[in-house]
Amino acid sequence: MTTSIIIAGPRGKMGSEAVKMVTEEKSYELVACIDHKHDGMTLAEIPGMPNLDVPIYTDVKACFQQHKADILIELSVPDAGFAHTELALNYGIRPVVGTSGFSKEQIDRLAHIAKETKTGCIIAPNFAIGAVLMMQFAKMAAAYLPDVEIIEKHHDQKVDAPSGTAVKTADMIKETRKSKQQGHPDEVETMSGARGAQDDGIHIHSVRLPGLVAHQEVIFGGPGQILTISHDSLDRASFMSGVKLAIEHVRNMTELVYGLEKIMMQ
Amino acid sequence: MTTSIIIAGPRGKMGSEAVKMVTEEKSYELVACIDHKHDGMTLAEIPGMPNLDVPIYTDVKACFQQHKADILIELSVPDAGFAHTELALNYGIRPVVGTSGFSKEQIDRLAHIAKETKTGCIIAPNFAIGAVLMMQFAKMAAAYLPDVEIIEKHHDQKVDAPSGTAVKTADMIKETRKSKQQGHPDEVETMSGARGAQDDGIHIHSVRLPGLVAHQEVIFGGPGQILTISHDSLDRASFMSGVKLAIEHVRNMTELVYGLEKIMMQ
Amino acid sequence: MTTSIIIAGPRGKMGSEAVKMVTEEKSYELVACIDHKHDGMTLAEIPGMPNLDVPIYTDVKACFQQHKADILIELSVPDAGFAHTELALNYGIRPVVGTSGFSKEQIDRLAHIAKETKTGCIIAPNFAIGAVLMMQFAKMAAAYLPDVEIIEKHHDQKVDAPSGTAVKTADMIKETRKSKQQGHPDEVETMSGARGAQDDGIHIHSVRLPGLVAHQEVIFGGPGQILTISHDSLDRASFMSGVKLAIEHVRNMTELVYGLEKIMMQ
Amino acid sequence: MTTSIIIAGPRGKMGSEAVKMVTEEKSYELVACIDHKHDGMTLAEIPGMPNLDVPIYTDVKACFQQHKADILIELSVPDAGFAHTELALNYGIRPVVGTSGFSKEQIDRLAHIAKETKTGCIIAPNFAIGAVLMMQFAKMAAAYLPDVEIIEKHHDQKVDAPSGTAVKTADMIKETRKSKQQGHPDEVETMSGARGAQDDGIHIHSVRLPGLVAHQEVIFGGPGQILTISHDSLDRASFMSGVKLAIEHVRNMTELVYGLEKIMMQ
Repeated sequence: MTTSIIIAGPRGKMGSEAVKMVTEEKSYELVACIDHKHDGMTLAEIPGMPNLDVPIYTDVKACFQQHKADILIELSVPDAGFAHTELALNYGIRPVVGTSGFSKEQIDRLAHIAKETKTGCIIAPNFAIGAVLMMQFAKMAAAYLPDVEIIEKHHDQKVDAPSGTAVKTADMIKETRKSKQQGHPDEVETMSGARGAQDDGIHIHSVRLPGLVAHQEVIFGGPGQILTISHDSLDRASFMSGVKLAIEHVRNMTELVYGLEKIMMQ
Repeated sequence: MTTSIIIAGPRGKMGSEAVKMVTEEKSYELVACIDHKHDGMTLAEIPGMPNLDVPIYTDVKACFQQHKADILIELSVPDAGFAHTELALNYGIRPVVGTSGFSKEQIDRLAHIAKETKTGCIIAPNFAIGAVLMMQFAKMAAAYLPDVEIIEKHHDQKVDAPSGTAVKTADMIKETRKSKQQGHPDEVETMSGARGAQDDGIHIHSVRLPGLVAHQEVIFGGPGQILTISHDSLDRASFMSGVKLAIEHVRNMTELVYGLEKIMMQ
Repeated sequence: MTTSIIIAGPRGKMGSEAVKMVTEEKSYELVACIDHKHDGMTLAEIPGMPNLDVPIYTDVKACFQQHKADILIELSVPDAGFAHTELALNYGIRPVVGTSGFSKEQIDRLAHIAKETKTGCIIAPNFAIGAVLMMQFAKMAAAYLPDVEIIEKHHDQKVDAPSGTAVKTADMIKETRKSKQQGHPDEVETMSGARGAQDDGIHIHSVRLPGLVAHQEVIFGGPGQILTISHDSLDRASFMSGVKLAIEHVRNMTELVYGLEKIMMQ
Repeated sequence: MTTSIIIAGPRGKMGSEAVKMVTEEKSYELVACIDHKHDGMTLAEIPGMPNLDVPIYTDVKACFQQHKADILIELSVPDAGFAHTELALNYGIRPVVGTSGFSKEQIDRLAHIAKETKTGCIIAPNFAIGAVLMMQFAKMAAAYLPDVEIIEKHHDQKVDAPSGTAVKTADMIKETRKSKQQGHPDEVETMSGARGAQDDGIHIHSVRLPGLVAHQEVIFGGPGQILTISHDSLDRASFMSGVKLAIEHVRNMTELVYGLEKIMMQ
């Protein structure tokens, strides 16, 4: 059985990976794309896109009326993304949404529609299965090993430190970890910053070097032992296994789920 | 509230760590020890043991009658260990058992008595919290990332390869991983053994060097990403946090549980 | 002062990286390319090449007569590469050669011409500075820490195991390491292959997983300590810093040197 | 041929390891110890020391007159250590000195005597061969890969951060590295300290967790590649291979050498 799929935002970084993934997967069929440009053209007519006879729509309603697809992969921008997702639910097309930046109200609204229409919907700010697992495992481990430090390593073109993933990991760890200071109570930094940033006693260190891509280690220590959970992300292709996983699950769902971990950690 | 504890096997490697842990923990009280030698003496009278006025019993019944302890920490040998555990359950003393090597029948029998007497009992072949977490996480990750290799590293006095933990980890991974061959289908070893041992396509590599203690990495690969879960065990002290965890849980239990993961992964 | 450069083999994997590197480096000028096709065209006229008005020659003599360049970067194929290098030396153009596969006789012949013409020449089978350093350091460490194992990790499209770099590293280690067996003398593999491949007692382990690129760890163990030297190669760009280093050195040389380490480890 | 050895400071942490090492090594003979206490006794008579009939001297001259040893292993305290070393040189006994804290003037004075008496002498502030190699390799790599960060990890009983080894490593790196700022020029710490301490653009990060002992990674990055040199020190036994190495070398020396790297990196 073939799963028919519409992709919104096919020219973006994630979107073009999704186009590639859907066309390579035998049981998937890309039936249309949604793009705020190029209405009426096909993918083949857009420079840099694969040579596919897939129609492009700017008018989302027209797209959904013409193509009763199983799935919408939504990878455009927040405002348009919300409108696309809402409309898809009303057409019985199950959305798999990677667009981040929806407000709490928008998510609640979409959850309400999904429930009423009994249409599955998955919104995931992070589709990298390995990163989701790393964060979940870190959260689980922190309940038993409350001494933890995070080292995240990125290329030296990254401006901000620490990374969003490191901050999110610390937040998740705090859900289970008993609040505590770490290190020696009389700890002294003879060079300022040596002990890194701190969040509730959790130390976070950011390494920036050419040659690095995107890496994180979460290190837990206890008497006589060290547990380390680490993730290396080298390529945007890593997100596509998460998108596939969401597609498999959303077909059998009748509600909205937020976060890939919800379907992974059942 | 103080938890009163009896330790069986106080002179063994694990047992002597347990004596140390129990006497250092303020809310615990070591009330007696069970030993097939030294009946009637105190710990203080045994060379190498701490200077504690704790009585030693070879007659287990006498011990349990004299000391209505909350907990028995059983760290002796399998046969004696089974008898101690059975008797403790009948006396309403909750056993925390690290002795490995009980048969399936013995465990079933103990589970039956625990249920009848409504007495909690925990039997755990591995009390190292970090190692238990590593194996559980590996099992969970393998459901999503079926390409996995294990590298275990030990000191060069270890005779057998791979380690028991590596074999057990592979077994647990197989519970969730879809069976598959890994690597290139036409893979060639130009030097025999390069690709390691194999269990259902999972490769296992054993490193032996002076300076190593006991380490394991479980490496999962997927397109564009690597997830690694690793554990370093440097000291037998690592087991004691698991024993403590079991003591906390067993007090509120009315049944037998096998495996520390059962109380950790609820 | 600008360094004028000719590139042989501009359409290959290494060659196209070299074209990019030379055109991005301000003090370098790409004056011509040598290619067995496209004679008389410019780079700009070849699909996929950068939009540069650089002439292409199939006739190497004509190229060298027309362009008295400082440097030839030779990245074509062995047979042509030898001819290009020999001719360049006779024209006083200093060759930096990445083409591997020259015979011992060919290298001796080029060394002879380089000496006679007092023209510097660098032939390097590996231009990745980090990999060269890893191997040199491994060789140096093995003199003091003779217990060593190598773990190399590559993507699962690689057919052969172990990697050429691992084999070469073991060879270099053997130059300084006192020959010995490693591990426990009574070592037993309960699963065949667990202890990896062996070369004079040095164990080599090959990991193959999707998501990996090209990685190697050389682990040295001694009583109470472990020294690890590891290299991760993620991108062909890594070779270009080695090519640049060779260009800087070859200008002041009057002989042939084989191996980047010769100019790095002075 | 047996090497006869005197140990000064046999009851200290390093000293007691040295006693153990010397007595276990077949070709070495421990002929006497120097100690500010216990004059006239033997090692066997001191609680906690091995059962050896080795005489202890508080009067150093008497010791050297009585025992024309080949080697003095000096592991006491700076002031006494200087006097012992000076006297040993005058008696033609070659000193291997681990006592740190000699002043520049003291070292110069000892070097002068060593030269005059043509007596080899090695003073080494760090006898851990692996740590010495790590620092030397880091210094060598920094000439080619100037982007570098240091992560040092220690147990959480360590008060100061960063470690002395990290500071020393950065100092050695600066000897060859072209001074530069690292990371993005517009780098922003959204949590203070995330990017660690800085020394001339080299970032240093200090991790403190229970379960750690003493570890350091030096990470070099360049386009498309990462080179990592790491050292794990688990046990004071690691120093003894360095002491042995010094003993082997000092016998053939006629001058003073400062730093184990001087005899390792020839």
